[in-house]
Amino acid sequence: MELSLQKIAELVGGKVDGDDKLLVHDLAEIQHAEPGELTFLSNPKYIKFLATTRATAILVDDNFMESYPNLIRVQNVNFAYSRALAIFRPEAPKPAPGIDSTALIAKDAVLGNDIHIGAHVVIAEKCVIGNRVCILPNSVIGKETQIGDDAVIYPNVTVYHRCHVGKRVIIHSGAVVGSDGFGFVRVENSIEKIPQAGGVFIGDDVEIGANTAIDRGTLGNTIIGKGTKIDNLVQIAHNVKIGEYCFLAGQSGVAGSTVIEDGVTIAGQVGIAGHLHIGAGAIIAAQAGVSKDIPTGAVVIGSPAQEKGKVWREMANIRSIPDIKEKIKRLEQLASQKIIRNRNAQESEND
Amino acid sequence: MELSLQKIAELVGGKVDGDDKLLVHDLAEIQHAEPGELTFLSNPKYIKFLATTRATAILVDDNFMESYPNLIRVQNVNFAYSRALAIFRPEAPKPAPGIDSTALIAKDAVLGNDIHIGAHVVIAEKCVIGNRVCILPNSVIGKETQIGDDAVIYPNVTVYHRCHVGKRVIIHSGAVVGSDGFGFVRVENSIEKIPQAGGVFIGDDVEIGANTAIDRGTLGNTIIGKGTKIDNLVQIAHNVKIGEYCFLAGQSGVAGSTVIEDGVTIAGQVGIAGHLHIGAGAIIAAQAGVSKDIPTGAVVIGSPAQEKGKVWREMANIRSIPDIKEKIKRLEQLASQKIIRNRNAQESEND
Amino acid sequence: MELSLQKIAELVGGKVDGDDKLLVHDLAEIQHAEPGELTFLSNPKYIKFLATTRATAILVDDNFMESYPNLIRVQNVNFAYSRALAIFRPEAPKPAPGIDSTALIAKDAVLGNDIHIGAHVVIAEKCVIGNRVCILPNSVIGKETQIGDDAVIYPNVTVYHRCHVGKRVIIHSGAVVGSDGFGFVRVENSIEKIPQAGGVFIGDDVEIGANTAIDRGTLGNTIIGKGTKIDNLVQIAHNVKIGEYCFLAGQSGVAGSTVIEDGVTIAGQVGIAGHLHIGAGAIIAAQAGVSKDIPTGAVVIGSPAQEKGKVWREMANIRSIPDIKEKIKRLEQLASQKIIRNRNAQESEND
Repeated sequence: MELSLQKIAELVGGKVDGDDKLLVHDLAEIQHAEPGELTFLSNPKYIKFLATTRATAILVDDNFMESYPNLIRVQNVNFAYSRALAIFRPEAPKPAPGIDSTALIAKDAVLGNDIHIGAHVVIAEKCVIGNRVCILPNSVIGKETQIGDDAVIYPNVTVYHRCHVGKRVIIHSGAVVGSDGFGFVRVENSIEKIPQAGGVFIGDDVEIGANTAIDRGTLGNTIIGKGTKIDNLVQIAHNVKIGEYCFLAGQSGVAGSTVIEDGVTIAGQVGIAGHLHIGAGAIIAAQAGVSKDIPTGAVVIGSPAQEKGKVWREMANIRSIPDIKEKIKRLEQLASQKIIRNRNAQESEND
Repeated sequence: MELSLQKIAELVGGKVDGDDKLLVHDLAEIQHAEPGELTFLSNPKYIKFLATTRATAILVDDNFMESYPNLIRVQNVNFAYSRALAIFRPEAPKPAPGIDSTALIAKDAVLGNDIHIGAHVVIAEKCVIGNRVCILPNSVIGKETQIGDDAVIYPNVTVYHRCHVGKRVIIHSGAVVGSDGFGFVRVENSIEKIPQAGGVFIGDDVEIGANTAIDRGTLGNTIIGKGTKIDNLVQIAHNVKIGEYCFLAGQSGVAGSTVIEDGVTIAGQVGIAGHLHIGAGAIIAAQAGVSKDIPTGAVVIGSPAQEKGKVWREMANIRSIPDIKEKIKRLEQLASQKIIRNRNAQESEND
Repeated sequence: MELSLQKIAELVGGKVDGDDKLLVHDLAEIQHAEPGELTFLSNPKYIKFLATTRATAILVDDNFMESYPNLIRVQNVNFAYSRALAIFRPEAPKPAPGIDSTALIAKDAVLGNDIHIGAHVVIAEKCVIGNRVCILPNSVIGKETQIGDDAVIYPNVTVYHRCHVGKRVIIHSGAVVGSDGFGFVRVENSIEKIPQAGGVFIGDDVEIGANTAIDRGTLGNTIIGKGTKIDNLVQIAHNVKIGEYCFLAGQSGVAGSTVIEDGVTIAGQVGIAGHLHIGAGAIIAAQAGVSKDIPTGAVVIGSPAQEKGKVWREMANIRSIPDIKEKIKRLEQLASQKIIRNRNAQESEND
């Protein structure tokens, strides 16, 4: 498919700055783009490729200052880029409705219309599967679990019993939803397991990454709010409540009963202790270790995590120690000179 | 089911402080509990909900100081709570004995009595499966592996060949037991794989969380001691030996050949380097990075991990740098005043 | 099988220092070795077992200084040990060629010779499976994916559509290759998913650990270079490019679009931010948090990661704060004495 820059600008909501009749047939990364391809520039790190890219045109922000023969200026490059991707690289159509003959579906499961159930899928008793749900090969859905309309469950996923998966939720391969929370009590010379009797409630439009684990609640539910996006290998412990439209990047972990409000951004490998409250819109930097409540909108870094400015001041302070030592040395020299001078003075007085 | 507070106190080993004839029909978290429900209070963070909870009664420690109309005082709240959960929310009965027709079991596997083998399970040659073992759909058990009596293996688990899984062990979905250790040797311009010829020995009463990985030994076994509880997404490398009744919380990792004695507590996202020795009863705080042996009973934090008091003193020292700078400034001012005064004094002497 | 020390020395390329006619029948770890067994010593931590081991002989480096009745001296102990393991503990033969009747293979998939396809494996449309490939039970291969000759895919692995897996690649259980990258854009009160239209290219001789996740590229491919070894629970984000013969240890993570050159060593639980460049041969210590480009051959530690010497100097500086305080105290005392002395002097002048 070939499209003119003019047409693309229309489709992504932008304005051509250059020759709007030029045609492009695909998208490419700026460092690899060839004539006939469109690229994009949002991260300033990649401006260096402006000199060498062979792209026919570049998607850039409205206020982009560098010059290039053909630009398409837009309000939000990432959004426009996402749209352009959807145009040039349309997703494969969803698998056709149908239930593979090797799938095992309990007789009392309730099945929606136009669902696709892949090979060797197991759907246990009393499950409710929404319309147009797609469950890919070798995934297992436990008893009494509900899967909302248009959800997509990739291969080798496990959803335990009595969980709720919202509409349009995407669960990637290897993810586990509803495993037992890590609840035990030390008793004398042994350890007793605390029953994990709650469930997991996953709101609409959530995405769950590969090999992520979300434990069921002990009593109530573990909750993932609408629109929240969870990356790969993330650990969500029992009774955690996550608000709407949060991001949890790869390998982050949230311990039991912590409450995360809406719009929080959690970077990679962050750890959040249990029973904490993370205010709406907070941003937690990569590898931070959160051991205290975080106020609304705060930006924290480090382990233990602290307000960004505070950590930077501490780091600057540590780096100033050599200077401190230098100053002390001078003061000590001064003091010893004075002592000598004083002694000399005294001695001369005594002369 | 409705039970009187008196009856519950009997069942959990406590004493009613209030109206022991009141009836409750369920358990709930303190912030959500309604009349007719029992709740519990062990973490002091939740005392704030005492003013607003509508629970009929609260399980508390013997020496609980706050007042509430109806309390059940017990020696160990968490233990009593665990018991109460088992009463009000009894676990679903184990799946009925039986072998699904889609399971593939090698002819020379030895099967115990009353086992439950789910759909699409694969049990390879010469496996020995104990009595009442429950292996849920799509799990795979490699050759010559033994699974002890009453073990429960959730869906999509993989246990490799020649491993031993103890009695009453629980393995959650996505966990992998017996994968090759990360053993390689750089040779000239290439990397050679070291054969991983050992196995994994998992003691009785161990629990293994979702998507945890436990590698087989290179020569001898990787060993998980009796009663040890491992959370989700934990990494146990080859030839690690873990003692009895330890806790390993989510996303912690132990590198090759490290020995962990009994009763050790390892918090979330802890990393322990290889070839170390962790003494019995040690406690390793979240995100700690252990690079040296830990003595018996020590409590360590930080990365690199150090004895708790030492880290706190270091942090206090870092926070005192602004004060140090202030003091140096004053000393410098003092010194320069004296220099001026001395100079003035000299000048006046010279007058 | 019994072999003389002489024969072993020949096979591993070493020289006997002792009685070369002695026979051994197996390998064992030094702390457990019995008469009739060969052991090895490469890590100096284990020299302490030299006094108590009952091994008949020990594989050691050419320049090993301690004495023991029978040694086999070699150039590279780990390599010789690996060879000896392959002799005494030969790997089980690969499963015999054959396709299990429960496997589901698309009619238009292209299958090589002598492949082994286990129970309940799913191979989707237009896949190309090389010669002697071994895909073990319950793994799923998505559409149009290629698996190179002699690759081994353990149970419960998922490889998504349009990925390339090289020759002799080993993928351990639970690993996921080709899941969607974590690409989203916040739009007003919502979050929009960016299509992940690229793939994953895994070079020859790569090994991928249990429960590791490698996301597909957004546009181009995520690339793992030839011979690179990836441990368990590692996260590789979209469009990461990893060079040849790198090591990535357990639970490490690399964020989107980062480029890692050849021969880099990444230790456990390391996190590398997105859009960075890691120079060839760099070494990144355990739990380091890399937030800036790393030059060729650099050794970095800490979070944020810095050159090793710099971090050590900073740590030494922090530990010198008590000494700094002591010196300031003495200067202050000295200053106050002088003030007093000066005052006294003045007072006596005024007398």
